[in-house]
Amino acid sequence: MRNPIPLLGAAVPLGTLVLLGCSLAAARPGADPGVQVASGDQAIAFTREGELKRPRGYRSWVYVGAPLTPNDMNDGKAAFPEFHSVYVDPISFEHYKRTGAWRDGTVVVKELVSVGTKSSTSGRGYFMGEFLGLETMLKSAERFPDEPGHWGFFRFTDEEGGPVHRTATALPTASCAACHQGSARDDLVFTQHYPVLRAAKGFGSGSPEDS
Amino acid sequence: MRNPIPLLGAAVPLGTLVLLGCSLAAARPGADPGVQVASGDQAIAFTREGELKRPRGYRSWVYVGAPLTPNDMNDGKAAFPEFHSVYVDPISFEHYKRTGAWRDGTVVVKELVSVGTKSSTSGRGYFMGEFLGLETMLKSAERFPDEPGHWGFFRFTDEEGGPVHRTATALPTASCAACHQGSARDDLVFTQHYPVLRAAKGFGSGSPEDS
Repeated sequence: MRNPIPLLGAAVPLGTLVLLGCSLAAARPGADPGVQVASGDQAIAFTREGELKRPRGYRSWVYVGAPLTPNDMNDGKAAFPEFHSVYVDPISFEHYKRTGAWRDGTVVVKELVSVGTKSSTSGRGYFMGEFLGLETMLKSAERFPDEPGHWGFFRFTDEEGGPVHRTATALPTASCAACHQGSARDDLVFTQHYPVLRAAKGFGSGSPEDS
Repeated sequence: MRNPIPLLGAAVPLGTLVLLGCSLAAARPGADPGVQVASGDQAIAFTREGELKRPRGYRSWVYVGAPLTPNDMNDGKAAFPEFHSVYVDPISFEHYKRTGAWRDGTVVVKELVSVGTKSSTSGRGYFMGEFLGLETMLKSAERFPDEPGHWGFFRFTDEEGGPVHRTATALPTASCAACHQGSARDDLVFTQHYPVLRAAKGFGSGSPEDS
């Protein structure tokens, strides 16, 4: 991910750039497909082949919460046994605070971290171990016209784990969207488990950061 | 916290501003104590009476991890029964990545969030509930010359809970520093439980954000 590389194939319509929250400073219709069009914390881009490149810079995005469903509470067979640190890109978060809705172009990143030790000076519990993977959901009416809420879901590891890949293809609706659609309270996002998001919409105990 | 208020008493030495990572743009020795000297995400400041004002803007700082030692894993008497979402101010985080050391002026914020539900579509586990409080540690040789590592510790709630106050006084060494000094791996910070920090120093599995 360190080298500057082509971010968009010539066939990708200009509108996609807007949908993905990219800077349009260097983008022109018919421009050299090798041109850098996404920059900074908002960088999200596709390869020429239509694969999503692994998001960069999300360490400076807005962290919204970290649910945990460990193996030892799910008969050793948790569907999601890791800590899930969830980030939202800052432009979409500000839009959400202002409007209460996920804008077209919203990017949500879920960083997967293993359960490390279960005991420390502070007591028994769950402490983070090692990075295991990365998943992303991306709202784009143009790219995902037929998906629920226009959300596309991506996983940068193989289902059985292994290395974190640099690109990913969109997952079938049944893999993620179906469950999010049924239970997530707010346009396929599980707002109910994220006090930062509830506070942004004016619900819950209010954030100590801005009250 | 919404109103502009005096940030430093006239008796606070100028050097303190540097120690706390504040902008010095508007600071002069003998300046009007009502002048705004801290701004943006780095805002951290003391009242005229020497109390730390609750940090603002940390939602855009660098989140580094969220340990959890719930009551039901500690005989109902956990010392820290909440989710702890931990943030580091971005200037100090960058310095840490570059040098591997916590600079004088480092601010660490710990946001306390209750355990909400223990079950969701994804399985049994721990999901975040409501905001409960805020704690801060601040490294300053000038303010805390006799504290271990020059770290001061602050809690913005009373020990028994209740509302999150707008200011806090430094806690006695025995309340926090003694334990951090004994067990935290890296200058009183529990680096061992934060993969983001380990990766910043080049240890562990490497961050999917920048590898």
